[in-house]
Amino acid sequence: MISEASQPVHPIRTGIVGLGRSGWNIHAKTLAALPKHFRVSAVTDPESERCLEARQGLGCRIYNDFAEIINDDALDLIVIASPNHLHTDQAIQAMAAGKHVVCEKPFALSIEDADRAIAAAEAYDRVLSPFQHRRYESHFLKVQEIIESGALGRIVQVRMVWHQFTRRWDWQTLRRFGGGLLNNNGSHLMDHALQLLPPDVEPDVCADLKQVLTLGDTEDHIKIVMKAEGCPTLDVELSNAVAYPQDRWLIKGDRGGLRGTPEHLQWRTMDWDALPPRRLETAAATGREYSKDDITWTEHTWSPPADEPSAYERYYQDLYTTIRTGQPLAIQPQSVRRLIRVLERCYEQCDVMPASPTSL
Amino acid sequence: MISEASQPVHPIRTGIVGLGRSGWNIHAKTLAALPKHFRVSAVTDPESERCLEARQGLGCRIYNDFAEIINDDALDLIVIASPNHLHTDQAIQAMAAGKHVVCEKPFALSIEDADRAIAAAEAYDRVLSPFQHRRYESHFLKVQEIIESGALGRIVQVRMVWHQFTRRWDWQTLRRFGGGLLNNNGSHLMDHALQLLPPDVEPDVCADLKQVLTLGDTEDHIKIVMKAEGCPTLDVELSNAVAYPQDRWLIKGDRGGLRGTPEHLQWRTMDWDALPPRRLETAAATGREYSKDDITWTEHTWSPPADEPSAYERYYQDLYTTIRTGQPLAIQPQSVRRLIRVLERCYEQCDVMPASPTSL
Repeated sequence: MISEASQPVHPIRTGIVGLGRSGWNIHAKTLAALPKHFRVSAVTDPESERCLEARQGLGCRIYNDFAEIINDDALDLIVIASPNHLHTDQAIQAMAAGKHVVCEKPFALSIEDADRAIAAAEAYDRVLSPFQHRRYESHFLKVQEIIESGALGRIVQVRMVWHQFTRRWDWQTLRRFGGGLLNNNGSHLMDHALQLLPPDVEPDVCADLKQVLTLGDTEDHIKIVMKAEGCPTLDVELSNAVAYPQDRWLIKGDRGGLRGTPEHLQWRTMDWDALPPRRLETAAATGREYSKDDITWTEHTWSPPADEPSAYERYYQDLYTTIRTGQPLAIQPQSVRRLIRVLERCYEQCDVMPASPTSL
Repeated sequence: MISEASQPVHPIRTGIVGLGRSGWNIHAKTLAALPKHFRVSAVTDPESERCLEARQGLGCRIYNDFAEIINDDALDLIVIASPNHLHTDQAIQAMAAGKHVVCEKPFALSIEDADRAIAAAEAYDRVLSPFQHRRYESHFLKVQEIIESGALGRIVQVRMVWHQFTRRWDWQTLRRFGGGLLNNNGSHLMDHALQLLPPDVEPDVCADLKQVLTLGDTEDHIKIVMKAEGCPTLDVELSNAVAYPQDRWLIKGDRGGLRGTPEHLQWRTMDWDALPPRRLETAAATGREYSKDDITWTEHTWSPPADEPSAYERYYQDLYTTIRTGQPLAIQPQSVRRLIRVLERCYEQCDVMPASPTSL
């Protein structure tokens, strides 16, 4: 057996479709920082200036359109960072052309599309890797670790919020591009939430989607409550209309709780066994006081290590291993299928309310 | 017309049923502080020591049971501060005996009981006054005023929470007494929430009730989301299992927001007209940046005046006016009927989850 260290490293030759906020700022820059494992060999974007910038910065080939780039035989992998409504079809076409695929979130806008993409990956025997890289975020991994340790006891509810106060007027606010806050940041936050349920659980969903400040025609205020028997209730809120943003995390367990942000978590734990035993008392309460224990908390905090790799890097390192060694994908499209189903149900459940006059 | 000041004041002769936390600490003490308008003339409680304490402190008569006190012809008003499961029948019996009634919350445990009580008030031509005194709380009145002023713009969502971390083992944790957190503090918080909807709106309700730490058999963790077209979404949470309690209020409007507690509110407002006009842009974003306005906030704060009357006093002052002058009740039982309906629907929707082993 040849040790990994002695194996020659062949960078995966990658083509990027779309050089916008994600294609350039996230994918191109992350891949350029991993030169042993990836090489950006080609790009395409409707904006010629962006292509020239990529050629100059990365020394890559330029293609005029999607059909050209997926037919470049020298590419192993296509990164799809185009607008959302193109994701599924482009992913399928790229796999049909023999390429592995990284597909920006959401990798499908309906469960039907998700199933088409998954079937194509099987039919063409290609890697289909939805870009749910936030599963690698260290605050999220830490929260999972704390929950699984049992330190907080039985988890009753997890509240996750992503609050800001802002209006937007770009393509992500338009339905015809598959926009909307739920498809965008919602794909990440809802994916995090669903990861806190057992893999086979499909929760009951109660969704409230509203259009408040966006100039487009999609929701920019979202509240979703998900319930499943024996599981923590998930309370997820994304909104661009919150003047007083709350922290990302609030977790309620029967032995403690957690709150915090991606940059700082704090949690407190307690021990019921250290308290006096109690029994039900239906007689008149002594001193007319509420029954109450004197609880002692143990406090804990965490911040991410300064030198750790980003979630983007972790994602791409694992993807490299999968493509080169055949090791199963860390983020299976099947595991994201449940997310797509929930997003679809939220949209089915709500007519997005009309924009307020103040945003016009 | 005789001016109010010149009218002789005849205190309303009041009998109190139940001298526990509410009957004694709230009702007896408030009434004793309003001697021109009320006189505690009689009490009854299964605990004889409590009755003796009342006779000594208030100089009132003592009765052995409910049937005796309601047949005291010298009483005008009966305050029902017994356990919840007794409220409706006792209210009806007291009205049948010719008494006006103050009934602790919830005044009914089902819509059927609410309707029976309302019908009895009409049939016997008596005042039935549900003790939803928190409608007089000054933070709540202030919040209503701010919302109605339009300062926050269109209200998108109102979050109201009542968080603590505690286990209880008294009668209010038992179903057979009509206990449970929803019937107790929930009657107040849900009533506040419903007051923020137009009177005729019956919202869609999504409820999650869990038993976490209580030693009884009722819920002590509640999440309820209420939606109605064109109305703010109401997100109400009561829980005895939150290690990091949040503030009571979080309000999200399209021109501002509010947060705070009964002791301190803060809100911020902004003016969209002061910002540059925007239009949808579907071309590539300049500098790959998210569209964003530079928002200027105007900050506001409020705390309750130190010398104002309590909500209890305001409630009883208005009740005095109603009984003495026939002015309509400020808090009509019909307006609380909607609350009872919503509470009932929450209970219908949820099997309360079993207690965790840590509470046994």
